[in-house]
Amino acid sequence: MTRADFLRARSPEAKAARETEILAAASRLALLKGVREVTMTAIADEVGMHKSAMLRYFETREDIFLRLAGTAWRDWSAAVRDLLDAIAPCPDAGAPQWDETARSIAGTLAGSLVARPLFCDLLAHTPLNLERNVSTDTVRTFKTRAVAEVENVGAGLRALAPLDADQARGVVTTATSMAGALWQMAAPGTRLRAFYETDPELSHSIVDVEPRLTDILTALLTGYALRPSGPGGPDHG
Amino acid sequence: MTRADFLRARSPEAKAARETEILAAASRLALLKGVREVTMTAIADEVGMHKSAMLRYFETREDIFLRLAGTAWRDWSAAVRDLLDAIAPCPDAGAPQWDETARSIAGTLAGSLVARPLFCDLLAHTPLNLERNVSTDTVRTFKTRAVAEVENVGAGLRALAPLDADQARGVVTTATSMAGALWQMAAPGTRLRAFYETDPELSHSIVDVEPRLTDILTALLTGYALRPSGPGGPDHG
Repeated sequence: MTRADFLRARSPEAKAARETEILAAASRLALLKGVREVTMTAIADEVGMHKSAMLRYFETREDIFLRLAGTAWRDWSAAVRDLLDAIAPCPDAGAPQWDETARSIAGTLAGSLVARPLFCDLLAHTPLNLERNVSTDTVRTFKTRAVAEVENVGAGLRALAPLDADQARGVVTTATSMAGALWQMAAPGTRLRAFYETDPELSHSIVDVEPRLTDILTALLTGYALRPSGPGGPDHG
Repeated sequence: MTRADFLRARSPEAKAARETEILAAASRLALLKGVREVTMTAIADEVGMHKSAMLRYFETREDIFLRLAGTAWRDWSAAVRDLLDAIAPCPDAGAPQWDETARSIAGTLAGSLVARPLFCDLLAHTPLNLERNVSTDTVRTFKTRAVAEVENVGAGLRALAPLDADQARGVVTTATSMAGALWQMAAPGTRLRAFYETDPELSHSIVDVEPRLTDILTALLTGYALRPSGPGGPDHG
C-alpha cells in the first residue's frame, strides 16, 4: 500500500464529513456572491483544501451545486408541507372561504421559496447550467429527488384544494420555476437590482418576488380549482 | 491617418451591415448548439472575421445575445398581437364561451413562444447570464424594449379578456418566464432530453412545453378573470 492509497482510504465517516464541509463552503460562497460566480478554486480556498484533493470528492462545480439543489428540494418540500398542514382545507372552490384558502396556499408557497435565496438561485441554474456538466448518475439522483418532491408537495396541495394530480404538479412547477426566474430578475443586492433602482426609466420594472408570486399562484390555483382540466369537465361558468 | 484608422472609418451603412452579419451568425450557432455553448471565437469564425475585429462591433458575447433578445421580444410581440387580434373578445369570465376564449389566448401565447426556440433559450439566459456582462447602456436599451413589449402584449390581452393592467402583465411575465424554464428542461435534441427519454425512471418527468404551458396559462387567465386582484374586489364565488 502506497502512502497515497493510505491517505485516500479514509473511513466512510471521515469522507462524509469532508463532503459536508465542502458543501457548506459552497453554500456560504453562493449565498454571498451568487451561484454563477462561485468557482471550484474559490470553494477549495474556502474549505482550506487543495483543489486537486477536492476533485476526489466532487468532479465539477456543477456536481457540488446539483447536490446542494437536491438537499434544498428535500428541505423546502418538508418545510412547506409542514406549513401547508396548518391551512384549513377547502375542497369546494365555490365556497365563500375559497379566496382565503387559495391566498394562504399561494402565500405559503411563495413565502417559503423567497425565504430560501440559495434554493431560488439554484432553481434557475439547475436546468440551464448544473445538469449539463455532471455524470448521468448524478443527474439521475438529482432528478429522482426533485420529481419525488414535486409529487410530495403536490399531494400536500391536493389535501387542501380540489386539484387533480396534473394540476397539483403544475402549481408546484410554476411556483418553483417562477421563483427561480423572478428571483434572478430582482434579487436585492445584485448589480442589476441596484441599477434598476437608480434608473428612473426602469425603476417601475422592479419585481417584488413574494407578492408577485403569491398573486400568480392564487390565480393559478383558482383557475385550476374552478375549471377542471381537459374537455368534458363540468361547466362552472 | 493610419491604415487602421481608415479601415475603422466605415460608412454607417457598412457598419450596420457588418453588425447584422454578426447577429445572424450568432443566431445560427445558438439555434444549432444552444446559447450557452456559443463563444465569441465561434461567432467570429462563422462570420469570417478576426475576433479582434469583431470586438469593434460588440464587446462581449452577452452584448450580442442581449441585442438578439431585444429583437426577439419585438418580433414575438408583433406576431403574437397579430394572432390575438383574430380571437373573439369575451369580456365576461362568467359567459359560456369564456373557457374557449381562455384556451385560445393561452394556446396562442404558448404556441407563438414554442415556435421561437431561440427566443425561449434567450428568455432563460437573459436575467441569469446576459444582463450581467454588458454596459449599463446596453442593459437599459434591452430592458426598456422588453418592458415596452410586456405592456404591448398586455394591452392585447386586455382587449380580449377582463384583466387589469397588473394581471395582464402577470400573464405575459408568466408566459415568457415559464417558456424559458420549461424549454430548458425539455428542449428536444438536448443531451438532457435524450437522457430522460432513455431512462425508464425519468421518462415520465419529460415536459411537453406547449400543452403544459397552455394548461398553466388557461388556468391563470381564468383565475385572474374570475377573481379581481387585491382585497375588496367583488366576490364571484
